[in-house]
Amino acid sequence: MSKNIFFEKSKPILLSEVFTESQFNKDLKIHDIKTLKQATNLDITFFESIAYKDSAKTTKASCCITTEKLKKYLPENCMPILVKSVLFDLAKITKRFYPDADLDYPDITLSKPDKSKYSSVKFGNNVLIGKNCQIGESTIIGNNTIIEHNVSIGNNCVIGSQIVIRNSLIGNEVVIQDGCKIGLKGFGFIPNKNKNIRMPHIGKVILKDNVELGSNCTIDRGSIDDTIIGKNTFLDNQVHMAHNVKIGDNCMIAGQVGFAGSTTIGNNVSIGGQAGISGHLNIGNNVKIGGGSGVVKNIENGSVVMGYPAVPLKKFIKDSKKDE
Amino acid sequence: MSKNIFFEKSKPILLSEVFTESQFNKDLKIHDIKTLKQATNLDITFFESIAYKDSAKTTKASCCITTEKLKKYLPENCMPILVKSVLFDLAKITKRFYPDADLDYPDITLSKPDKSKYSSVKFGNNVLIGKNCQIGESTIIGNNTIIEHNVSIGNNCVIGSQIVIRNSLIGNEVVIQDGCKIGLKGFGFIPNKNKNIRMPHIGKVILKDNVELGSNCTIDRGSIDDTIIGKNTFLDNQVHMAHNVKIGDNCMIAGQVGFAGSTTIGNNVSIGGQAGISGHLNIGNNVKIGGGSGVVKNIENGSVVMGYPAVPLKKFIKDSKKDE
Amino acid sequence: MSKNIFFEKSKPILLSEVFTESQFNKDLKIHDIKTLKQATNLDITFFESIAYKDSAKTTKASCCITTEKLKKYLPENCMPILVKSVLFDLAKITKRFYPDADLDYPDITLSKPDKSKYSSVKFGNNVLIGKNCQIGESTIIGNNTIIEHNVSIGNNCVIGSQIVIRNSLIGNEVVIQDGCKIGLKGFGFIPNKNKNIRMPHIGKVILKDNVELGSNCTIDRGSIDDTIIGKNTFLDNQVHMAHNVKIGDNCMIAGQVGFAGSTTIGNNVSIGGQAGISGHLNIGNNVKIGGGSGVVKNIENGSVVMGYPAVPLKKFIKDSKKDE
Repeated sequence: MSKNIFFEKSKPILLSEVFTESQFNKDLKIHDIKTLKQATNLDITFFESIAYKDSAKTTKASCCITTEKLKKYLPENCMPILVKSVLFDLAKITKRFYPDADLDYPDITLSKPDKSKYSSVKFGNNVLIGKNCQIGESTIIGNNTIIEHNVSIGNNCVIGSQIVIRNSLIGNEVVIQDGCKIGLKGFGFIPNKNKNIRMPHIGKVILKDNVELGSNCTIDRGSIDDTIIGKNTFLDNQVHMAHNVKIGDNCMIAGQVGFAGSTTIGNNVSIGGQAGISGHLNIGNNVKIGGGSGVVKNIENGSVVMGYPAVPLKKFIKDSKKDE
Repeated sequence: MSKNIFFEKSKPILLSEVFTESQFNKDLKIHDIKTLKQATNLDITFFESIAYKDSAKTTKASCCITTEKLKKYLPENCMPILVKSVLFDLAKITKRFYPDADLDYPDITLSKPDKSKYSSVKFGNNVLIGKNCQIGESTIIGNNTIIEHNVSIGNNCVIGSQIVIRNSLIGNEVVIQDGCKIGLKGFGFIPNKNKNIRMPHIGKVILKDNVELGSNCTIDRGSIDDTIIGKNTFLDNQVHMAHNVKIGDNCMIAGQVGFAGSTTIGNNVSIGGQAGISGHLNIGNNVKIGGGSGVVKNIENGSVVMGYPAVPLKKFIKDSKKDE
Repeated sequence: MSKNIFFEKSKPILLSEVFTESQFNKDLKIHDIKTLKQATNLDITFFESIAYKDSAKTTKASCCITTEKLKKYLPENCMPILVKSVLFDLAKITKRFYPDADLDYPDITLSKPDKSKYSSVKFGNNVLIGKNCQIGESTIIGNNTIIEHNVSIGNNCVIGSQIVIRNSLIGNEVVIQDGCKIGLKGFGFIPNKNKNIRMPHIGKVILKDNVELGSNCTIDRGSIDDTIIGKNTFLDNQVHMAHNVKIGDNCMIAGQVGFAGSTTIGNNVSIGGQAGISGHLNIGNNVKIGGGSGVVKNIENGSVVMGYPAVPLKKFIKDSKKDE
């Protein structure tokens, strides 16, 4: 995953080019922008919330956009670049590396599939495929579906009709039902009067083997990180997954559930219809979340919760009865 | 409705072929899998929940997949086949009869409409029609819309653009707005580590006369039974109807409402925006359900409810004030 | 905005032609149906709820469909036409003026874009454009997208794929992500056994400069009035906006939010995911509405609310704790 196959990246840049006001090693060259976890000593990273302090402590990045308050968590090898708004400066440097990732320009390299290249793939009518896609054996792609450049799809997948897939890596035996929009940029921007500043989205969507998505789901790609759905996890219709959300293996997500950005869901989690999960949360393994719940806190392994805000199921039932 | 026009069925099979471990009439031949209500003495049926005991008592099926606990409700003519998981064995035998109904393979018999066959139908651009469809007089089909094989659509319908319709029977004067996905398989499977077991969906969607669907709705077809919307019932945008849901006549369903599987809604029911209705419920006639409600119990005729969980409206208002 | 560019209007009509049972100036000729605010002395208007009494007092319409109870608010120059159901008679006269606006017949004037007319526009594959559209410089239109007749789109817009836009005026630098359906008729009808009476929708959707819509949003056009999104307001995925909703400038609307009809939202408002806003409300400026909230009352400038029903955030937190 070291190279970004979906977005063109500029050459390495001198840090001093971008952060002109800071005083630090003027000659430091940075090669890419990555998360705290993924960065190497060639990269710059960012650290905007105490929630990520564990990742900060072990980052290998050579420098990190952060705040006065958070800098103490960074290791010695990582030079802090102190700013007022981490997200603002993150947007600025990401845009500098990836000038085309802040908007989803439709792929104009699309064309009808080259049957000689995809000889074992079954295509419906009017399918459009971008450059450098990979589609595995015995996969079926439905009518009017659009697969943008560099997307890879595994073997034995059933991709429905009227779907858009971009910036995504899709495993084997994945099922995607009609109307899904996968890999679009997320809802990330810095509010600014008259003209918001968009956060470039250089991440991907990764759907692991045996994933199923119901119809009209929207799965946004990650901003710097990726959006991931684990093996054998099934989503029902009209589910919305924001950027950077990670869902584990063997989960069941019912219709119209919404996930706000950067939340992580464990394995074997089941979520009832129309539940909403706030952003930047950790939901453990083997958790059950009742339909219609609004989850606003982390949830421990094995918990069963329901309600708005979500509470342990027993309490929800007791409270509902108390009102009677 | 005795023949399934959407899915190819295998020849009749010996019961002993499928249920090798059970002891019973080895020579019993079964012709199809049907619901308790629809089965004839040529069919096998299934009975998995006490909620269906009334239908069980009068079933005409020759045999029934059920449990030790439930078998006492079956009539004498119906031989119980006792299993641990009714749904598991139901999936197995349904897949045996209908090998292609567990996944929605895109219809590759689609082609441009034959103008001589559909001489009184108005088609937009790029419409795709499958084999053996029927489309009534003066019906209009919008741009980029896909009508898969064997679908029938009545007279004077207005079908919008970028729609997919499969496995559906649609009445007269039905209006379907852009982006709806109708007749896809539902969210039915038996969770199984690493590879869930999909329930074949051999049911249909039936939209009766004068139904209207707003844009981007998703209406899943039935699993063994059908999904039905009654006459003159209107749905707003982004409504999600799971498999086997039945809505009566003259209902009004506002935007983003979600119905979990196998729930039945009476006539003259109105449901406010974003309400969610749990699965396997009975909602009576003339019921009003407030916006945002979460309905988790059966509701009697004429009730007015609101809240999460939904309670009588008066109580909801009193409780809201009490908190003030 | 005096002429309706999207719907063909009949010639002026004698009032007595439509309201045969009323007694009034038999020779009064009316030229159009408009809202209380927009009507001139050539137009008829309507006044169905006390909520609009301020607009009623200053209307310039020559006559107004209303009720015995409300007529006292109308100025002298405006003749009241007293009816039992304002909406029923509104539907009747609107249909008389605009016979084709009660159903969304797909545009059959669509064709591939004329490259000589749109020389500075970049088009994806299979784009369909109706008659008399205007598309600004350097705008990009994605694949399989449909722009119906008379729609105008400004400069530097990025319109994604598999979108439908009709009856809409779109500003500069607007971003619309894949799968949105914009400008369709709303969920407006008079319930009537066996055959509801549809309210014609002669309004538009207006998206001002720098608006962004996430994927699979549905933005219905206005009925008599317009649906409007102000400058620099961003919507996330799967948002549903009903007819006549007006959102101000610089707002942030998260995923799966739903707006019922005719509600007005101020400037600088942020709304969390899955919140629902009831119809005919006024939400002030600088309001924050928490995720999952159900807003059923007007909200004053600067308020922060959460809950179902929504209450001030402090109270929501206190109540949630009290239950613990």
